[in-house]
Amino acid sequence: MPKVTFLPSGVEVDVPPGENLLRAAMLAGLHVNASCGGAGVCNKCKVLLEAGEARGERLPDGGWKACATVPAGDVQVRIPVESEMDRRALARPRRAAAWIQAGEGRAEWPVAPLVQKTFLTLPAPTPQDNVSDLYRLRRELAQGELADVALEVDPPVLYTLAETLRADDWRVTVSLRGHLGVPAPPRLIRVEAGDTTGAHAAVAVDIGTTTVSAELVDLATGAVLAEVSDYNPQVSYGEDVISRMEFARKGDGLAVLQRKVVERLNGLVRELFQQAELSPDRLSLITVGANSVMTHFLLGLDPRHLRMKPYTPVANHFPAFRGRDIGLHVAPHVRVYLAPCVASYVGGDIVAGVVGVGLQREEALTLFIDIGTNGEIVLGNRDWMACAACSAGPAFEGGGIRHGMRATTGAVELVHVHPETHEPMVLTIGGRRAKGICGSGIISLLAGLFTSGAVDPQGKFRRDLATPRIREGRDGWEYVVVEAEATATGEDIVFTEVDIENLIRAKGAMFAGYLTLLESVGMTFEDLDRVVLAGNFGSYLDLEQAITIGLLPDIPRERFFFAGNASLLGARSAAVSREAAAEQHRVAQMMTHFDLSDNPQFMQHYMSSLFLPHTDAALFPSVGGGAA
Amino acid sequence: MPKVTFLPSGVEVDVPPGENLLRAAMLAGLHVNASCGGAGVCNKCKVLLEAGEARGERLPDGGWKACATVPAGDVQVRIPVESEMDRRALARPRRAAAWIQAGEGRAEWPVAPLVQKTFLTLPAPTPQDNVSDLYRLRRELAQGELADVALEVDPPVLYTLAETLRADDWRVTVSLRGHLGVPAPPRLIRVEAGDTTGAHAAVAVDIGTTTVSAELVDLATGAVLAEVSDYNPQVSYGEDVISRMEFARKGDGLAVLQRKVVERLNGLVRELFQQAELSPDRLSLITVGANSVMTHFLLGLDPRHLRMKPYTPVANHFPAFRGRDIGLHVAPHVRVYLAPCVASYVGGDIVAGVVGVGLQREEALTLFIDIGTNGEIVLGNRDWMACAACSAGPAFEGGGIRHGMRATTGAVELVHVHPETHEPMVLTIGGRRAKGICGSGIISLLAGLFTSGAVDPQGKFRRDLATPRIREGRDGWEYVVVEAEATATGEDIVFTEVDIENLIRAKGAMFAGYLTLLESVGMTFEDLDRVVLAGNFGSYLDLEQAITIGLLPDIPRERFFFAGNASLLGARSAAVSREAAAEQHRVAQMMTHFDLSDNPQFMQHYMSSLFLPHTDAALFPSVGGGAA
Repeated sequence: MPKVTFLPSGVEVDVPPGENLLRAAMLAGLHVNASCGGAGVCNKCKVLLEAGEARGERLPDGGWKACATVPAGDVQVRIPVESEMDRRALARPRRAAAWIQAGEGRAEWPVAPLVQKTFLTLPAPTPQDNVSDLYRLRRELAQGELADVALEVDPPVLYTLAETLRADDWRVTVSLRGHLGVPAPPRLIRVEAGDTTGAHAAVAVDIGTTTVSAELVDLATGAVLAEVSDYNPQVSYGEDVISRMEFARKGDGLAVLQRKVVERLNGLVRELFQQAELSPDRLSLITVGANSVMTHFLLGLDPRHLRMKPYTPVANHFPAFRGRDIGLHVAPHVRVYLAPCVASYVGGDIVAGVVGVGLQREEALTLFIDIGTNGEIVLGNRDWMACAACSAGPAFEGGGIRHGMRATTGAVELVHVHPETHEPMVLTIGGRRAKGICGSGIISLLAGLFTSGAVDPQGKFRRDLATPRIREGRDGWEYVVVEAEATATGEDIVFTEVDIENLIRAKGAMFAGYLTLLESVGMTFEDLDRVVLAGNFGSYLDLEQAITIGLLPDIPRERFFFAGNASLLGARSAAVSREAAAEQHRVAQMMTHFDLSDNPQFMQHYMSSLFLPHTDAALFPSVGGGAA
Repeated sequence: MPKVTFLPSGVEVDVPPGENLLRAAMLAGLHVNASCGGAGVCNKCKVLLEAGEARGERLPDGGWKACATVPAGDVQVRIPVESEMDRRALARPRRAAAWIQAGEGRAEWPVAPLVQKTFLTLPAPTPQDNVSDLYRLRRELAQGELADVALEVDPPVLYTLAETLRADDWRVTVSLRGHLGVPAPPRLIRVEAGDTTGAHAAVAVDIGTTTVSAELVDLATGAVLAEVSDYNPQVSYGEDVISRMEFARKGDGLAVLQRKVVERLNGLVRELFQQAELSPDRLSLITVGANSVMTHFLLGLDPRHLRMKPYTPVANHFPAFRGRDIGLHVAPHVRVYLAPCVASYVGGDIVAGVVGVGLQREEALTLFIDIGTNGEIVLGNRDWMACAACSAGPAFEGGGIRHGMRATTGAVELVHVHPETHEPMVLTIGGRRAKGICGSGIISLLAGLFTSGAVDPQGKFRRDLATPRIREGRDGWEYVVVEAEATATGEDIVFTEVDIENLIRAKGAMFAGYLTLLESVGMTFEDLDRVVLAGNFGSYLDLEQAITIGLLPDIPRERFFFAGNASLLGARSAAVSREAAAEQHRVAQMMTHFDLSDNPQFMQHYMSSLFLPHTDAALFPSVGGGAA
């Protein structure tokens, strides 16, 4: 990795190949004014190349646009200092983000999927050996590794069997699917002509309330071949699960919601194969991580009792569904495996996530935090697990935030606020003109504004600062993150006090959840060996910033791991490994669920958490009380 | 049972209650002229009541119509003697039919069907016990007899589960289906509100090439609640399996044949429930006995390799199919279980029949003979079995016989030919005007004409007899069975020399088959402990007559059993008992198949059998060589 040395501070940083100098500065914790997010239009991010080679865009005065310049090797870069304020800002770089990718700490699953492909060469029939086509196949299977196997046969297999066996001179590949949770023999679900053992793929899906993400996984190697994601189109019928369950009660509401998500899945599956330039014929199975309500909707199960006391789902552990039976445009052999749920608000996404990061394998006490449209937490290790839902709301997915958006191209994903000028350094996903602000950007903004003193511990903007970026807008006080001329929308992108209120409530609910679960087992933050954060943030979620706003506890940084979309990670594990899929069911059964909705301790902790970072400053020793 | 004493012969016979005097005479082996089959129109069957009471129709001269008169208790009945010929005929009654119903020798299956219903009362959910609906059910099952059972769940169950559990205050009946041939846990296929353990029925079906028969079986008791049968509508596309396979090859022929038989099944199932005045909702499963080709057609499997060397079926053992998946109008939980086949021409009908009569349980050496559209035979006992198909053709089902028909109302089912006048005594099914002649009638006619000397050992009519019933007709020489004025069609019903030729070829193929199988294991007819005859004949198939024409071997009569439609019997066993269903698979696997189609010994035996009863008179010591 090229090393970039920034002057005058002398801070050095190793940057991934291809990374531009603006991102390098952000990684180094240094501030460079930049409004357009890296789209190359604001021309504010000028730097000077003092040593080494780089490729990029020059400014008329000989400087380089940091957002459009990539080092070709080790370089020395000077950030121009315009004022004493800048000099002071540069002299104390922030601590660099200290995430450890959860994958690093997690043992990989051996590639041994629920559906296995085996290549066979059968003897051709003769008058002396004219057994049935099916028996000929079974006999060969019984002679191989699958000796003595009793076999179930999927009826559709029979319709093409005769033709398929004869298509490539009695050379065939069979797909056998294993069972989960029941001691049953494998099931013959597919027979293909020739050797197709290499053409074996799964689609792993996370169906979030807001976003549906999917990966195409090569089941021969375990490699991810393509990734896509898009909104959950059910959003049009309700932002959150409650309003969607309400919609489902009326008329054919349930059918509409089911169809919508299945249509989206059909589209994503098609896209995945197009992106990977592979035939959809490779698809052997689909694995899904989804919360309880999304799981009900995907299957078309009525969730009416999920929203009424005492909140009972139809099921938590689901049988494998035939994709076709729920409307997926897939071959008849393709089954959909759903991660099991634990309770109404602790669903398969959490169970998949926990198994995805390997919590159930470790002795280390882990706090698993999933921040999605709601917030769910799991505390435990390989011996026990407690879980709870925190009703945190969708703020960290951009919900209820004026310019909130998903973590896709054009989303502001990382912001640094100049500690004295309050000018922002904005990075967008893909370096495009900003369209809105995603989860990591929101955390970043709130932390930056709080650290710079622009926002006080109650979450209010200081009205007395000499910056045009803080102003009174339509919804009250707000901060201009990106001016209209640098956005994709032609409108200012702002961050309002109402947004901040929503964020503080959301992080407060999460923090109150951690405290309540820990107390329930007589533990404190000090006992935690690991904290794993999962969620659909941008790729540059900043750990320090998340601690600064009180979303995460203030404990040694090396204990933090970032899992990204853990539900999708878990779905991928289940696709690749039948052991991982089986572990999901074991984990769902071992989790003890705590209902926080009428827990008085939770309410008390929640009220104390509606402050930046917290009313109890002793919980956040490393975070100051606002501007220095 | 009322006893009828016939005068002047003094022959006595016990008759089933409600049986008329014409049938009583036939049972006694006595001849009474009767042309109309019991329809009461020919007025030939006059008898005199000498003692006892009877209900029936009187003739103007004070006599009674035997066909319309039922004894009210013990009676003495005089058959008027018109001539010395009659007197001689009456003086030597034929031996009575000596069939033992195969059911008598067969151990009953305990009622324990593949689908079991269990009634459960669940605790209602509370905030402290808000597990999922499915888990609540599983938990209860695990506490009962099904402790520790791992359970598979049919996805459709989930769609109505929440509603059903709550419909009758958490009292439900679950249906669990077992697996055949694989060690797998039961599958939850249905949940109904309340206690429906008594509302549990199966439909057992025999799909013959010519006829489809079905029974409604009460799975709580094992009782047969209704029976129906009708033509196989595929007959319109070919009389035999070869021509239907030819039809299936062209265009959508296969789909047409599949649809036709499924439509028929849908109709028969509807009829069964109407007849029994029960809701079709009771249906839990369907079991089928059918030959290999009919099985392929029912499932819509292409039988093209069945008709080409080396004659390989797609499969012999079939997984349970969902009724809906093959077009049946049944609930989603209803599976169709098919009796397994052995070879192209020894199908599930034979396997079902063998298990239905319990051949596999006995040490006794049994020859099982099924005379359907083709003839199949099985030789063996509980330790070994050999089987073969004889290509006998459909003559005994009425195929290739000018006035042949199925064994339904109006079919001539039993005939006695006066040994001197050659006048017939005709009984029809249901005592209606004759429409044609069914299997038992055909055997009866040929035996009667042969015994009376009207037909010689080569199967030709004697041209020199002084009876108007033998005449030269359109197709050569023929015998008038029923004159036009007494038939339902208004045309003479005749029996031709061409019919006789076909019959002799058919019985010759069967007999050659017995000999070939016996020889293959070094045995003779003397070694047989039992002969079980199965087939869709009328209910009065006469054993002596069948031996007389050489269709059955001339061995002690007490060794013969009559099973009727054994395939249907076997389907019923499999419906009532999962053990019987499992036995079908074991039996199919233990059968050794002999291909007679190019077997030189078979051809030699066949040529020798084209004679009445056989060229080797030593094989039929008790049968004379024709007219006395």
